[in-house]
Amino acid sequence: MISVVKIGGNVVDNEELLDAFLSNFAAVSGPKILVHGGGVMASRMQKSMGVEPMMIQGRRVTDDFTLRVVTMVYAGWCNKGITASLQSKGCNAIGLSGCDADVIRASRRAPLMVDGKPVDYGHIGDVSRESVSAETLKGFLGMGLSPVLCAINHDGKGGLLNTNADTIAQSVATALAAAGEEVRLVYCFEKSGVLMDKDDESTLIQRLDKAGFEALKQEGKVEGGMLPKLENAFKAISEGVSGVMICHASNINNGIGTLLTA
Amino acid sequence: MISVVKIGGNVVDNEELLDAFLSNFAAVSGPKILVHGGGVMASRMQKSMGVEPMMIQGRRVTDDFTLRVVTMVYAGWCNKGITASLQSKGCNAIGLSGCDADVIRASRRAPLMVDGKPVDYGHIGDVSRESVSAETLKGFLGMGLSPVLCAINHDGKGGLLNTNADTIAQSVATALAAAGEEVRLVYCFEKSGVLMDKDDESTLIQRLDKAGFEALKQEGKVEGGMLPKLENAFKAISEGVSGVMICHASNINNGIGTLLTA
Repeated sequence: MISVVKIGGNVVDNEELLDAFLSNFAAVSGPKILVHGGGVMASRMQKSMGVEPMMIQGRRVTDDFTLRVVTMVYAGWCNKGITASLQSKGCNAIGLSGCDADVIRASRRAPLMVDGKPVDYGHIGDVSRESVSAETLKGFLGMGLSPVLCAINHDGKGGLLNTNADTIAQSVATALAAAGEEVRLVYCFEKSGVLMDKDDESTLIQRLDKAGFEALKQEGKVEGGMLPKLENAFKAISEGVSGVMICHASNINNGIGTLLTA
Repeated sequence: MISVVKIGGNVVDNEELLDAFLSNFAAVSGPKILVHGGGVMASRMQKSMGVEPMMIQGRRVTDDFTLRVVTMVYAGWCNKGITASLQSKGCNAIGLSGCDADVIRASRRAPLMVDGKPVDYGHIGDVSRESVSAETLKGFLGMGLSPVLCAINHDGKGGLLNTNADTIAQSVATALAAAGEEVRLVYCFEKSGVLMDKDDESTLIQRLDKAGFEALKQEGKVEGGMLPKLENAFKAISEGVSGVMICHASNINNGIGTLLTA
């Protein structure tokens, strides 16, 4: 069973929480892959350089300057910091962007219509199961390595593309499942899981199936970043991933969180 | 024969020259490893963030802030840009920092005495032949991958260290030689090779042996960055590297440059 674990930017940005999470990740048994965000740090870096980040409908518009910043922050500072920390915890991690060993090739997103107008998000990439070289990842796992993937991928023509980390995790998990591997997917963040009331940790939903998710969506109970996360998760399940867990960064080994089922 | 090629920061900083160099590197036959600098870009980035780089005797003092900048620039922007470009040229490159797969572990440099006073260079690492995991590099080469190494290494305790890229190239080459591989080392930069008169490209020295180097040194003809480069190169030869070439970035495949021999 291969574990694919996604860790969100709010955790990556919190030194103490990140360190505890990485200790837990290092303790996960069996082959494993980490996918991390870093958006909070990228926004802060951009602001410190005097440029306000531009987000449209929650997505970062990635012009040349922004691409440089996110590549520096995600592929440089976050990815190497996480990898070095995992090494110190006895986990033989290897930090990768999609261009490394051509492990994930993204396609540049065409301008999207937002409020009736075309918006060019710039150097933004989309990935799917077909974007991922499962054979290469299996090669690294076979060497005893734990790949640590950031959100920077490439287009195969020399360009780098900024990609959604949740989608990367889902694409990696489903690509490995399609290659015949048994895979579990874990989305970690700073809350306990899917909550009935997003401000009340005691309203944790322990199990959620597709029908239950659709009902919650109808009732407007799933909001913001959780909606695409759950869409990704159920897509992964429909494409052969054994189980998806959504949980707090400190709970990846104890079963506390929301388990998603078909 | 494994080629270990080092490319300097002035070339990495020059878009056109870098692109031509990477095309040449992609065309090198046989297993190959690239080591790159990026100091010019790191200094510019640091200045753009309002902080003046501090150099003492040509070495960058690397405090917490500077470590973040060099990690972002070397391991992020430069390393992934080079790797994505090589991918587009048909070379299956894999960008690595020393923490990745624990491929190079550096030791933090103790404060040095400069003009009678101890200077703490901060997060600066030293590497040697023993720092390099030749087996891991051979594993990647065996997968058909071309490692692209930047100057960021780790200490095994979770810390990142800024290291001299020339020394990394020499250490990688000698570690592979010690592991029984035939290795050639190529140092590329923006001049034709070792020049008798550093301002006159027509004074290229085509061959230089250790005795000739010592004589040049006595005469004060070897200056600045060339001195440690040549020291590194002759150390590599004494430790089993077959040949060392110092040449212009556009000449790695045509034999024009300075060939160093024992």
